[in-house]
Amino acid sequence: MVGPGWARTGSNMERLYLFDTTLRDGQQTQGVQFSTAEKQRIARALDDLGVDYIEGGWPGANPTDSDFFAAAPQTRATMTAFGMTKRVGRSAANDDVLAAVLDAGTPAVCLVGKSHEFHVVTALGVTLEENREAIAESFAHVTAKGREALFDAEHFFDGYKSNPSYAVSCLRAALEAGARWLVLCDTNGGTLPAEVHRIVTEVIAQGIPGDRLGIHCHDDTGHAVANSLAAVDAGVRQIQGTLNGLGERCGNANLTTIIPTLLLKEPYRSRYQTGVSPEGLRGLLRDSRMLDDILNRVPARQAPYVGASAFAHKAGLHASAILKNPTTYEHVDPALVGNERVIPMSNQAGQSNLRTRLAQAGIEVPPGDPRLGRILDLVKEREDQGYAYDGAQASFELLARRELGALPAFFEVLRYRVTVERRKSASQGIVTISEAVVVVKIGDQVMMSVSDSASDTKDDNGPVNALSKALAKDLGPYQAVIDDMNLVDFKVRITGDGTDAVTRVIIDSEDGQGRRWSTVGVSANIVDASFEALLDAITWKLVRDAR
Amino acid sequence: MVGPGWARTGSNMERLYLFDTTLRDGQQTQGVQFSTAEKQRIARALDDLGVDYIEGGWPGANPTDSDFFAAAPQTRATMTAFGMTKRVGRSAANDDVLAAVLDAGTPAVCLVGKSHEFHVVTALGVTLEENREAIAESFAHVTAKGREALFDAEHFFDGYKSNPSYAVSCLRAALEAGARWLVLCDTNGGTLPAEVHRIVTEVIAQGIPGDRLGIHCHDDTGHAVANSLAAVDAGVRQIQGTLNGLGERCGNANLTTIIPTLLLKEPYRSRYQTGVSPEGLRGLLRDSRMLDDILNRVPARQAPYVGASAFAHKAGLHASAILKNPTTYEHVDPALVGNERVIPMSNQAGQSNLRTRLAQAGIEVPPGDPRLGRILDLVKEREDQGYAYDGAQASFELLARRELGALPAFFEVLRYRVTVERRKSASQGIVTISEAVVVVKIGDQVMMSVSDSASDTKDDNGPVNALSKALAKDLGPYQAVIDDMNLVDFKVRITGDGTDAVTRVIIDSEDGQGRRWSTVGVSANIVDASFEALLDAITWKLVRDAR
Repeated sequence: MVGPGWARTGSNMERLYLFDTTLRDGQQTQGVQFSTAEKQRIARALDDLGVDYIEGGWPGANPTDSDFFAAAPQTRATMTAFGMTKRVGRSAANDDVLAAVLDAGTPAVCLVGKSHEFHVVTALGVTLEENREAIAESFAHVTAKGREALFDAEHFFDGYKSNPSYAVSCLRAALEAGARWLVLCDTNGGTLPAEVHRIVTEVIAQGIPGDRLGIHCHDDTGHAVANSLAAVDAGVRQIQGTLNGLGERCGNANLTTIIPTLLLKEPYRSRYQTGVSPEGLRGLLRDSRMLDDILNRVPARQAPYVGASAFAHKAGLHASAILKNPTTYEHVDPALVGNERVIPMSNQAGQSNLRTRLAQAGIEVPPGDPRLGRILDLVKEREDQGYAYDGAQASFELLARRELGALPAFFEVLRYRVTVERRKSASQGIVTISEAVVVVKIGDQVMMSVSDSASDTKDDNGPVNALSKALAKDLGPYQAVIDDMNLVDFKVRITGDGTDAVTRVIIDSEDGQGRRWSTVGVSANIVDASFEALLDAITWKLVRDAR
Repeated sequence: MVGPGWARTGSNMERLYLFDTTLRDGQQTQGVQFSTAEKQRIARALDDLGVDYIEGGWPGANPTDSDFFAAAPQTRATMTAFGMTKRVGRSAANDDVLAAVLDAGTPAVCLVGKSHEFHVVTALGVTLEENREAIAESFAHVTAKGREALFDAEHFFDGYKSNPSYAVSCLRAALEAGARWLVLCDTNGGTLPAEVHRIVTEVIAQGIPGDRLGIHCHDDTGHAVANSLAAVDAGVRQIQGTLNGLGERCGNANLTTIIPTLLLKEPYRSRYQTGVSPEGLRGLLRDSRMLDDILNRVPARQAPYVGASAFAHKAGLHASAILKNPTTYEHVDPALVGNERVIPMSNQAGQSNLRTRLAQAGIEVPPGDPRLGRILDLVKEREDQGYAYDGAQASFELLARRELGALPAFFEVLRYRVTVERRKSASQGIVTISEAVVVVKIGDQVMMSVSDSASDTKDDNGPVNALSKALAKDLGPYQAVIDDMNLVDFKVRITGDGTDAVTRVIIDSEDGQGRRWSTVGVSANIVDASFEALLDAITWKLVRDAR
């Protein structure tokens, strides 16, 4: 186990540049379609992480990408627009697709172009010379506009294997036209590490400088990370990749894996510097989870470095050795990437971890307090039932408060009923109406409230919202406290299987003070699960603000 | 794109052996606990696939593993029991842990032992010489019983870096005592490919024959596959791994990735033979899905070779080139691993992708047909409303069929009502009851059905399931077709924001023929959205199977 590379910053270290394409190639992932707001949020996180380039999308290709560049966030990282080299048969200045890319006004522009003769002939249907001229003219045009230019040499490795001199001549055409970076793309993801190393070595031997070369890999054989590092070993100085390995087909090289390896593992940590700081690295797990959250994906438990299981020691022999010395079964310290060790809940390490979490919620419990063990048992038992407290800190806090006797009984729900009905309306349109009745006891008072909403209004007319509205009507004395609450997100997952299948609902709420908190409910019935999460959300707000 | 390696079977090819440890190291995955029946099912699938060794577990360590060996399936593969070298301070014959392993009666026995001085001293607390003697005696004992013996040299790479001569002397002790295989384990998963290659090369140079060496890697830096192949490049002839990369922490080397690379990719396909036949390889996707099914995991969409997205071409430029020639964006033929090409719909797709996608669904539309443009417009319009068709191919197909006039009117839903009620039951417990009423018209017949379920039964008692059950009751003439349908996953996402927020529900269904399909529904009301996805799921099944 070693400390991070920045501790050795020295004059002998070479600079490696990280180019993130989560917002462009990452958006080619099946099922992924970012909104403009999501792209902005991801761009800000990437900037905080410390990547050097953020490829934001293809301006002009679709409204979302155009909107993103129209209001791109200010970043330290170089904002980059993606496009393609000009088409044959018109000048660079008259290519409207290229013009739209330049119109985004980014400091850097990355253009993909062909470098594989088979693709020039088969896909483009032009001559080899016409393609090379299109590359040269495109980069001359981009650099004349004062932009930093990058050439994504599509299918470079396959092209090199088929016709090495043509592939290299395409690189040279871009280089001589002023491109800052020539990015060798393993577009189909079929190249293996030894081959990447050999071809990069040969390219550099032919006079293309390594510090002008980048690498862009795909994971079709599970080698995107290994190929990227093999290219660095052979001399390239820019790595392209995405958070969580999003991307076309099997995904791009996973920067969430590559970054900690570069910063923490030899020979990279002594040899190279990047723009990622220790603080950026500690935020890596949070960044990875943020992306999954935006995509409503279950985070990959076994992901290197940032997976929930990445430092989980299940084997009994491993767990007992870990307690003697963590280096026995850990190759790096999990805290460096914002992760933590997971060992059986019942032991001492589990309890100190729990005390830290409670302290974060303002609850101090002395070490060795037997209630700590009971809380851990309860968490384990409920996680077996399908609860997930990692993503629902507010519900975890309420569970602990309940066990510690530190949770006031604000109100009791005696019963509820929610009805969703879809039918033809008087005007023969189809209308759906949700109605909720909630009966609540506050002190000695029993209060009954009803709320409804219909699909012909603009409001959320679902059953959970109807319940939430009916509940909000009932809480007379606490009304002022919950008035500024909003339900902002709602995630549902089926867990377990067969007859044990249950629904887990996670609700994100926020209030007028800008606080955001998450609560969880589990039930075989999605409405019950939602109601439980809703009750926790209100109760947490009351704990924080009542009286 | 190349044909498989078996086509070149020749006398120059060397044999590589595949050792599967899904049932042993795979069971160290957080959250994984196989039953005996599941282990038997997996063992049979591994045998059909063509691995050489199946490590079934640790006899004596837990009841499941003992039960598995007591009734282990007959396999062509060599069934292997796992255990550890004898403890210091007793003879091999008197070690009860080792005796339990031998008592399983398997033809092969794999014993893990220490080869890293730090672990000998820190974890075992014995001398280096005592540990080496324990290795020698253990293997002499196992081979004297007529068993094939394998030595898992734990922490070999870390041990070699710390004390190379001691690490190699442990290998030699096992070799001289008759072990058939010496398996170099990167137990903590922190070694990188170049280091694996160098150390294996040095070990062989010290006189340990490569055809007696195996490799066992973990994925903590995302290099388990690359490390395994680097070891093969350097001379080892056995690879240990698991299906889908199950295993402790980040998992073991993924055989689901390694096997196709060995059989389909150069230099491996010309250089090595394995026990996997073309038919075994074509069953790989099915084997991978079977394991996910047993674990109730959502299959990893982006897994190399076997992921649902592994041959999905989302970018418009890629999709149009693929139509001209699949090798433009595919490094191998998906059919060789039992997978298939996917050209998903999204706002980046053009008419040619659309025609291909329709053709896959059995719908032929001539190029230039104006209805193609209308379908694309409709897809775009609905994606703006929150629909996501590239994760819901079945709904896309229905949308297209509707527009093309190729969708029979199976039935019409006139109205529905679903009620969820939570109240105290007679026995003072809290009970939640869901009730659904659905009124459907089939031909001239109007049918009304009701279904309910309560939280005090073991069934899914949510509103969507109640609706699904009521709907299924109504479809009299189509009953036989939908009887084998199951709702297997249910994903909910809030999209848009503020007053434009809508709920998107994606439902995955499967049937008795092993088909799995996804449908989407969007509404401000989650019940309406679910109902829409549910209707699509049933309609798609009727399109495929009715009449």
